[in-house]
Amino acid sequence: MSRDRYVIGVDFGTLSGRALVVRVSDGAEAGSATWEYPHAVLDRALPGGGGLPPDWALQVPADYVAVLRNAVPAALREAGIDPADVIGIATDFTACTVLPVLADGTPLCELPSYENRPHAYVKLWRHHAAQPHADRINALARERKEPWLPRYGGAISAEWEFAKALQLLEDDPEIYRRMDRWVEAADWIVWRLCGRYVRNACTAGYKGMYQDGSDPDPGFLAALNPAFAGFAADKLAAPIGQLGDAAGTLTAEAAGWTGLRPGIAVAVGNVDAHVTAPAAQAVSPGQMLAIMGTSACHVMNAEVLAEVPGMCGVVDGGIVRGLFGYEAGQSGVGDIFAWFANGFVPAAYQEDAERVGLTLQEHLTSLARVQPPGGHGLVALDWESGNRSVLVDHELSGLLLGLTLATRPEEVYRALIEATAFGARTIVEAFTAAGVPVTEFVAAGGLLRNEFLMQVYADVLGMPVATCASAQAPALGSAIHAAVAAGAYPDVRTAGAAMGGRGARTYRPDPAASAAYDRLYAEYAQLHDYFGRGGSEVMRRLRTLRKEALQ
Amino acid sequence: MSRDRYVIGVDFGTLSGRALVVRVSDGAEAGSATWEYPHAVLDRALPGGGGLPPDWALQVPADYVAVLRNAVPAALREAGIDPADVIGIATDFTACTVLPVLADGTPLCELPSYENRPHAYVKLWRHHAAQPHADRINALARERKEPWLPRYGGAISAEWEFAKALQLLEDDPEIYRRMDRWVEAADWIVWRLCGRYVRNACTAGYKGMYQDGSDPDPGFLAALNPAFAGFAADKLAAPIGQLGDAAGTLTAEAAGWTGLRPGIAVAVGNVDAHVTAPAAQAVSPGQMLAIMGTSACHVMNAEVLAEVPGMCGVVDGGIVRGLFGYEAGQSGVGDIFAWFANGFVPAAYQEDAERVGLTLQEHLTSLARVQPPGGHGLVALDWESGNRSVLVDHELSGLLLGLTLATRPEEVYRALIEATAFGARTIVEAFTAAGVPVTEFVAAGGLLRNEFLMQVYADVLGMPVATCASAQAPALGSAIHAAVAAGAYPDVRTAGAAMGGRGARTYRPDPAASAAYDRLYAEYAQLHDYFGRGGSEVMRRLRTLRKEALQ
Repeated sequence: MSRDRYVIGVDFGTLSGRALVVRVSDGAEAGSATWEYPHAVLDRALPGGGGLPPDWALQVPADYVAVLRNAVPAALREAGIDPADVIGIATDFTACTVLPVLADGTPLCELPSYENRPHAYVKLWRHHAAQPHADRINALARERKEPWLPRYGGAISAEWEFAKALQLLEDDPEIYRRMDRWVEAADWIVWRLCGRYVRNACTAGYKGMYQDGSDPDPGFLAALNPAFAGFAADKLAAPIGQLGDAAGTLTAEAAGWTGLRPGIAVAVGNVDAHVTAPAAQAVSPGQMLAIMGTSACHVMNAEVLAEVPGMCGVVDGGIVRGLFGYEAGQSGVGDIFAWFANGFVPAAYQEDAERVGLTLQEHLTSLARVQPPGGHGLVALDWESGNRSVLVDHELSGLLLGLTLATRPEEVYRALIEATAFGARTIVEAFTAAGVPVTEFVAAGGLLRNEFLMQVYADVLGMPVATCASAQAPALGSAIHAAVAAGAYPDVRTAGAAMGGRGARTYRPDPAASAAYDRLYAEYAQLHDYFGRGGSEVMRRLRTLRKEALQ
Repeated sequence: MSRDRYVIGVDFGTLSGRALVVRVSDGAEAGSATWEYPHAVLDRALPGGGGLPPDWALQVPADYVAVLRNAVPAALREAGIDPADVIGIATDFTACTVLPVLADGTPLCELPSYENRPHAYVKLWRHHAAQPHADRINALARERKEPWLPRYGGAISAEWEFAKALQLLEDDPEIYRRMDRWVEAADWIVWRLCGRYVRNACTAGYKGMYQDGSDPDPGFLAALNPAFAGFAADKLAAPIGQLGDAAGTLTAEAAGWTGLRPGIAVAVGNVDAHVTAPAAQAVSPGQMLAIMGTSACHVMNAEVLAEVPGMCGVVDGGIVRGLFGYEAGQSGVGDIFAWFANGFVPAAYQEDAERVGLTLQEHLTSLARVQPPGGHGLVALDWESGNRSVLVDHELSGLLLGLTLATRPEEVYRALIEATAFGARTIVEAFTAAGVPVTEFVAAGGLLRNEFLMQVYADVLGMPVATCASAQAPALGSAIHAAVAAGAYPDVRTAGAAMGGRGARTYRPDPAASAAYDRLYAEYAQLHDYFGRGGSEVMRRLRTLRKEALQ
């Protein structure tokens, strides 16, 4: 019998990276290790002490290399396998997380003369200081009817490549001039592994407005700022890599960091949500995969190109080659539950939770689950972090309605869970209404652990909610891409069928609960449209008043 | 020099009764004592264990007698006076708090055969389960253009005598048949003191639709339910007593309970809010007195009879003889703050409060007050207990809007305080618009202690807020009525001038804060009308769903 072959998937998250060693034949997870970024997120000051304005969020690229040097060897040790049996490595990253580099890939923040320049660092996905630039891009694109705009539901995000680059150009033109490339971290880490800069089709499409083989028109960019005209041609230019292809082979230097053999396949970069689809066996048209954590990302393939109002984007081959990949999202999910549990639950609940050996949220869940749907008399809007889909409005805010003097924390907690499920249903219905029907809902991510929440989603959606088997699904998804890049499988779908997997449990809707939730959802939908679609602009006005008051 | 003479005022609140010994000559408060009702509020189960549906709120009448037996002697002891120097006693009560009794005043719940029958107990003012009955009464009264309807702002409340009696008739006809009288607790306690049942003009008018010398028409009652035709004639009939008159004299039995001399004057019953007006020297036309505690009641006299939309009622002599007494109210004020502070504030706040020697609400206030108006980005609707004025709808519920992941408990607490101030402003504006201008706002009640809250009210109302000097104003008001009933003063206004008083501090609006609150109030008003005046019936539908779910 021949020796087992393995691949490595490395998932770069917001605070740490995780390496996973996976058997090629069946996806068995042999070992894993995580490594926390020493600098975490820079949102108050640079490493040298220089302060940062509000809404900034930076990172240090050397922290990503530290994951390769530490988590990969540790995962190999835990797996107890011979590194010579590893045939490929692939990575996935948060996005849009982006940095300025020299022609050889050196980050500008690593040049001593720039180490105190905020714009020389990595801008993390949740750097939100480029909102004014995004607003200008959207206004001009609407005015000029740029052809790519409908591919993003009618608005691009302040988190993406062009908004962040325009901020860089206008705030620190010297750094802008000095950078040779404006690189997604997803591609930069691959560049570090194989020595080649390849723009992955996923971030190029979803975060870089690369559509139908073209970047946005230079005339459009010039109209934003004359000095921006050449941005795409000068600062983004690189070959596009399809997901699952090899970007190159492992360099001797990277082999030294990781303990792997030089020359093995290095896959094209990818994004945490999208890479998860094959791990969850959710790559066929109509299978919507929801990665549910602090926020939620929804990805789905379709054979048709449609304009879904309020989606994040549609990209040809954005998830797997040959299909249109759609993305949508909810800006707050687990974040909302944590905000409420940490900020609005009295001591007695914490004490009761400790007494029965539960976390506070587990305890709230156990109290919430015994009530019948609608028994709390509440409905909430899940907009504490704004709304990413389908309204695409970060000035919206959360709402709680139906409060009485009998309302208890576990009831509010349940209403918040339900609200996020209603938010997911709003997305599902928007896709279906736009001619991209959702036929199956598959969940992955940390919230899978909450079985009550999963059942609420099934009841609210009125469709079965399948689950991803792996607890480290993005890293497994990367490993699947590594196996394809190494030639072990002909394509991602085939590899996912062999290496990915569904959890044993599928949550099936309870008809009585679904009927009750249909009525609650009707209330949510009415409030959603009233406050989100112009019935009342109160949420925007309160934001304005708040900003003025705090000035 | 002749010996000082004294009177006793007893204020029966929602959870306890307070007795106050007051010097007749100048209103000096010589001693006081409170007694908590042993059964408090029955809102989940009867004393014998039988469960209660949602929205029920009952009490046990023996708890009221316990106040006479305990608080009155204790107050006398604290005062250190000779009980022989007490010339009269008067009481005030929550309303409409009402109970079924036999012809001799025995409460039906004290009959062993009825002790497990919820309808045999006192229905506390905040028993809200008769809303469907109130809806029918209002619909029919509108249809028939009953002459009394405009006296109640166009709608009577589910809290009042007729709605609660109709519920009793239809839910438990045996109890209904068996009761000889349906008595306000305000009158029942006077009956216990002097042995005579006298219907006080205040509750008869405000809670019993007794107008222009008549009860509602039997034909109207028969149209509600044929068995209800004789309700007023059979179950309410009693002589009407004017406020400040004596209902009778103290019986030997009641003298034994209280330690007072038999034969002293016992005043006609009264209501906690109305009785306070002379204590706050707020009995002249245009002086709106707000008694601000767990809920708020607004009373004001006028020489004109006007129809104020959504007022609770207007009664000739309802506050003082010779003027039209107007009443409005907010069903939840301090109750809302307590509900939030007790139910939705994490341990760290309690610990910090203890460290600095503050109560939790004082600590929340100290955190809330440093923010500029509008700085929290929130607006709330103060309807956790429904809305008494001007919408008169107990199916409404609380709303919180503008929540973000940065929202903290002290910000919500402040938004709730502001919401109750906006509710008060809504009432003031309704009176002024109806031709009964509010020229002065005078505050009494427990919330006076919160200086930040009082300043918010002044800023939101845009007018000075004067205060009542006494911290036990209703009991002082009762004592003033006792002095009049005993003949020490010719009328309530004269007695109030001698025995009542204003606090040293008047809160004056800050122009900048008022301007900011005008903008927040505009948002409140829009939400108030949208959810309260038919824009969306979501709150009613959630109540229905809740009731069905919990059945």
